[in-house]
Parts: sequence; structure tokens; C-alpha cells
Amino acid sequence: MITLYHCMSARSFRPLWMLEELGMPYELQMLPFPPRVTQKTYLAINPLGTVPALFDGDVRMTESAAICQYLAARAGKTPLDVSSEDPGFAAYLNYLHFGEATLTFPQTLVLRYAYFETAARRQPQVADDYAKWFLARLRTLEPVLDSHDYMAADRFTAADISVGYALLLAEHLGLKSRFTPAVLAYWERLRLRDGFQRAMAAQQKAALAQGVSTVPAPDVRPAA
Amino acid sequence: MITLYHCMSARSFRPLWMLEELGMPYELQMLPFPPRVTQKTYLAINPLGTVPALFDGDVRMTESAAICQYLAARAGKTPLDVSSEDPGFAAYLNYLHFGEATLTFPQTLVLRYAYFETAARRQPQVADDYAKWFLARLRTLEPVLDSHDYMAADRFTAADISVGYALLLAEHLGLKSRFTPAVLAYWERLRLRDGFQRAMAAQQKAALAQGVSTVPAPDVRPAA
Repeated sequence: MITLYHCMSARSFRPLWMLEELGMPYELQMLPFPPRVTQKTYLAINPLGTVPALFDGDVRMTESAAICQYLAARAGKTPLDVSSEDPGFAAYLNYLHFGEATLTFPQTLVLRYAYFETAARRQPQVADDYAKWFLARLRTLEPVLDSHDYMAADRFTAADISVGYALLLAEHLGLKSRFTPAVLAYWERLRLRDGFQRAMAAQQKAALAQGVSTVPAPDVRPAA
Repeated sequence: MITLYHCMSARSFRPLWMLEELGMPYELQMLPFPPRVTQKTYLAINPLGTVPALFDGDVRMTESAAICQYLAARAGKTPLDVSSEDPGFAAYLNYLHFGEATLTFPQTLVLRYAYFETAARRQPQVADDYAKWFLARLRTLEPVLDSHDYMAADRFTAADISVGYALLLAEHLGLKSRFTPAVLAYWERLRLRDGFQRAMAAQQKAALAQGVSTVPAPDVRPAA
């Protein structure tokens, strides 16, 4: 049985979404955010103190985009995976990484220095630098999405879950109003998927059952 | 023929190192750092303005760790690749991502706010926050490296190139003196490899031939 440690709408939403898309059974352990501060016992489970942590028999993983690729491969034949023989393989790998390293990490700077830090330690310049940085990188998807519905292999894959989570976080941070048209249409396509909706419902239900706040981590409401 | 766009000792060192380890032929195009500022024509080649950009026939990739995985798979049978049937597959994927998203991005904050920005825009607090952040994450490798020589599958793989580049950058930023013993021994193991040495020599030679400065980007000398 797969166990996933997760905070509401944090990066660990990627493997949760992936599990729902694949219809794999799993146990969901909800944590308050950020777990390394609010739940010190979690450091024994994941010394990084971050989510996700995923356990699958002897397997232990902590990188959300890597977990998506792992689950796609583990599922066996699934359109969410892209094999090395597929002409879309290079784009698949590229956007799995791009979603996290290029589109998500910059937003964590906005989160930290515009919202999480105490007033004395907030850094509006840094938050602004990285909001711009994120939006500039995001605009480079426009020509891709003008001619393709998805990031790789002309179908929905784990790479879309990697990029899609960055768009969910951007919505939480109030950056959705600055999405370009093709990116906005892509985001609508992703969030209307049954798998996405099931993952949203699953985290809500688990949080209520486990007595964890259902306010997304970050504690930032969507702008709209 | 593979073409790699590269700046001295920037993230694009990962695919360069990989190409040398695999003994694949390639053409190396050197750029001054940062290319999006110093060489505007590069934006026509890579609209992100970042390195690496790798071209291989119809393939175009921009994420350094993804390129390493792509090249490992493209090479066919090589110990640097880890297949989905290998018990080390999950760790392989995890550390390919960890090397970039968890160990490299935080260092780019140090680079930006301690070195690159003009004096008025420097942010010593942010540089310090992320140096600590990087070192805390790096310490979590200590127990892994106490019992294993490499990150995954008990052999040198593309995952070590992903993590190894983060250690090269840390050395440039003067953080090597704070490596824990097992991490330091691991870094020595990596940098003494023939493939690493050939990659270092290849970028030096290409920079001289193409009239690009051989001072590593970032323009920060190793501390020791």
C-alpha cells in the first residue's frame, strides 16, 4: 500500500493528483503546514521536513515531480507515462522538471517573503523579483500551448501534473489574472479533469477526518 | 549531432559532464553569463534565455537534470541509466530532481542577492536564509552516503551528475568548507572522475577557442 504525506494544496498535491488519475489505492496522511515547524515528529518520517513523502514498500521518495514519473512507470501501461521510445519522451522529461524547478520554486520566494515571514523579515523586492521571474518563464509556454493541448506527446501525462501544480499555486498567490490566454485555457482544461477534482475532494475529506485545517497551505486564498 | 549551449560551470555543466561520461559526440557553444543579458540573439535560440539548451535532431530541451536522464536513456545500455525495472529506479528519479530543485535553486538566491545584484539591491538576509536552507538539505545526504558511494543503484548514474553539479556550485560560492564529512568524500569521488575532468577541460578549451571568458559563471572563485 502506498502512503502519501501531504499538506493542503502543497507540492504533495502532484502525487495525490497522479494517484487519483491512475486510480491507485493509497493512504493519505494530512499534516499542518509547514510540517517541520508544526509537527516535529514528522522529521523522523522525513528528515527534510518537507512534503511530499511517499512510501511504497521499500521505496521512499520526497520529490513531487519525480514521484509522478515513478507512479506513471509503476502503473504499467498508462497514457500518463511516456516511454523512452515515444517521440514525446524528451518533452515529457523536460516539463516534469520545468514544472518544479522553473515554475514552482520561484513562487516559493513570493510565498515566503510576501506572506510567511514576520513583518520585519518580509522582502517585497524579492517577492516582486520572483513573481516577475515566474511570469516571464510562464509566458514561454504560450507558443507551445497555441498548437498543443498538453505539454508532451499530445496527451495528458505526468508532465501536465507537474506544470499544472505550478498553476494551482499561482492561483493561490493571486497570479492567475496575469496568465496569458493559452496558459489560462490550459489551466481550465486541467482543473476540470475528474482526476483533479477527485484529488481536491480527497484532501478536503482527509483533512476533515484527521482534524487538520482545510485552508490551503499556503494560507493564501485565491484572488478571484 | 547534439548541440549544447553552455556557460562556464553553469547548470549546463550537467549535460556536458553527462556527454563526456557517455563518450557521445557533441558540439559545444559557449556563451557569456548571463546570456539573456549579454547575448540577446540567444533568445531566438532559447526564449527562456537560460542555459542549457540542447538540440538533438527534433529534440529541444532546457532543463539540465532532465537532459541527463534523456541522454542516459538515449545512449542505450549504459550503467549511468537506471531502468524502471531496477530496484534503484525510485532513488534515481528522486535524486535527479533533488539535485536541481532542492540543492541548486536555493544556491541561485545566494548568487543573485550576495553577488550579482547591484549594491543597492543586494539582500544579505535572503542570501543567508538560502545558504542555510541549502546546507540543511545537504546534511540529509549524510546517512545515505555513510552506507553508499552513490545516490542510486549503488553505482555512478545521472543522478550523481545532478547532485554533483550542486556541489560544484557550492564550491564556487564558498560553501564547501561547510560540507559534512561523507558529503565531502562524495564530492572528491565525483570530481576525480575522468568524465568530470574531461568536461572541465572541454569547457575551458571551447571558451578559449570561442573568445568567451574562462572565469566560471558565476564570477565567484572557489573559496579554497
